[in-house]
Amino acid sequence: MKRRRDSSASLAQDAGRNGESLGVLQLQWDAAVKVLSAGLRQEVTRAGFSKVLLGLSGGIDSALVATLAAHTFGAENVLAVLMPYSSSSPESVEHARLMVDTLGIESQLEDITPQVDAYFANHPEADRTRRGNKMARERMTILYDLSQARHALVLGTSNKTELLLGYSTIFGDSASAVNPIGDLYKSQVFALSRHLQIPELIVNKAPSADLWQGQTDEDELGMKYAEVDRLLHEMVDRRQRREGLLRAGFEPELIDRVNSLMKGSQYKRKMPVIVKLSNRTVDKDFLYPRDWMG
Amino acid sequence: MKRRRDSSASLAQDAGRNGESLGVLQLQWDAAVKVLSAGLRQEVTRAGFSKVLLGLSGGIDSALVATLAAHTFGAENVLAVLMPYSSSSPESVEHARLMVDTLGIESQLEDITPQVDAYFANHPEADRTRRGNKMARERMTILYDLSQARHALVLGTSNKTELLLGYSTIFGDSASAVNPIGDLYKSQVFALSRHLQIPELIVNKAPSADLWQGQTDEDELGMKYAEVDRLLHEMVDRRQRREGLLRAGFEPELIDRVNSLMKGSQYKRKMPVIVKLSNRTVDKDFLYPRDWMG
Repeated sequence: MKRRRDSSASLAQDAGRNGESLGVLQLQWDAAVKVLSAGLRQEVTRAGFSKVLLGLSGGIDSALVATLAAHTFGAENVLAVLMPYSSSSPESVEHARLMVDTLGIESQLEDITPQVDAYFANHPEADRTRRGNKMARERMTILYDLSQARHALVLGTSNKTELLLGYSTIFGDSASAVNPIGDLYKSQVFALSRHLQIPELIVNKAPSADLWQGQTDEDELGMKYAEVDRLLHEMVDRRQRREGLLRAGFEPELIDRVNSLMKGSQYKRKMPVIVKLSNRTVDKDFLYPRDWMG
Repeated sequence: MKRRRDSSASLAQDAGRNGESLGVLQLQWDAAVKVLSAGLRQEVTRAGFSKVLLGLSGGIDSALVATLAAHTFGAENVLAVLMPYSSSSPESVEHARLMVDTLGIESQLEDITPQVDAYFANHPEADRTRRGNKMARERMTILYDLSQARHALVLGTSNKTELLLGYSTIFGDSASAVNPIGDLYKSQVFALSRHLQIPELIVNKAPSADLWQGQTDEDELGMKYAEVDRLLHEMVDRRQRREGLLRAGFEPELIDRVNSLMKGSQYKRKMPVIVKLSNRTVDKDFLYPRDWMG
């Protein structure tokens, strides 16, 4: 396979946070947008929908999904749902509103504080991880409720880095009908967002799940997206083994940690396991209805 | 394939509701319990857990899962979570408590009314289907929160009939880590529950999701489990085509309706669709970590 080099003028001017050279992760962004948009349209149409909705957090991933959706279906067919919790950064909602205004899409505000607090009133001992996961799942339940109310399909906003590392809440932010950015590493999310002129306030801030104050992805993961994305690309897309990765200069500790995260989160990328008893088990031998009926 | 005939003495005495002859769906229940229990133990252990939890509704499916779990892991390693809503039938909680006492497992009560009502206070127009789905998803979020708090794996309680017809709430009751009854049709759930001496109060009542008063599965689906299970078995397990099904005496309307439900719910049996861009996409080309690392 040929390695693409970062020779694009548009990317060369990127600097500062997350502005490292993309190297092998560089793509022809105009072409990428066409592929993503066509795929998104096909999947949404096939499911019988013409409208979509998504949770807009104020972060870059959902900003990019909203932009791709408005580009694909028209702003009038995209609903952004803003779902802050009382401790969410006010900046997050501001940035979400900035995206709503920039794209001219419809928005709806759903404060999740009452529901989340009602539950934890009986579980005061819960730590911030439990609270963060409950919030992520509460948001999913709201998106799916509004999906039914509005007949709009739920778009996912998990990028490939998060999916591979399992950096998401199962049945929370990882749950959706169609995900248009799940095949883009976080570094590529940054590059494509710049290409699509998503406001710099959103592109340049430190990525965070905003589940508690001061949280940043890179602190929590203990690794830099720029580096881990290059490593994931070598491991997953180029199927490099450990020796090759070491030769390429990756630290053994990073390789082992990423490998361990990927294996440990495999369950998040699979359907629930069904204990097999019959000769045709759902999700094992029975996968495609097209197999058996005209 | 040899068709097993319903010649078992234990089944022959079943009568009344759901007590029809199982015919081809009859199994050697002692052997089935061994297979299910070994599979359940293997999957839970592989995930690094020794304790399990489940939502116990008072219905037969979760009663059977609780029974299999207690049999497999010991009563002391099973937590039953009772999650009524204010409109849930009081009988449901009573039946759940009866199972808890019968098995000697631990239980925890989580009233979901405050959270659910807090959300719908701002959505008074929501119909009972939306409310029922929100409740099913709220229950999932609680099971996953307690899973983290207790280090216990979430067991699923969807049977094969529900899975194939899509008669479940996506990311709600269909969400779990391991499902020990997902390869049993509802008729088989009844038969195995009788075999395991689950209390008759639970086995003999009309199956219901209890999402609103008076709801019964068979009314809502517009079909009888005994008949639809035989049809599903012919379609899925024996790969019979339409002509064969008609020859076997199934009504064309039922065949078409079941086929349509199965096709229309395929999305519930799959992971979120990721729009493909790279040569190795999660859930498409990248399925098994074992493919690429030692």
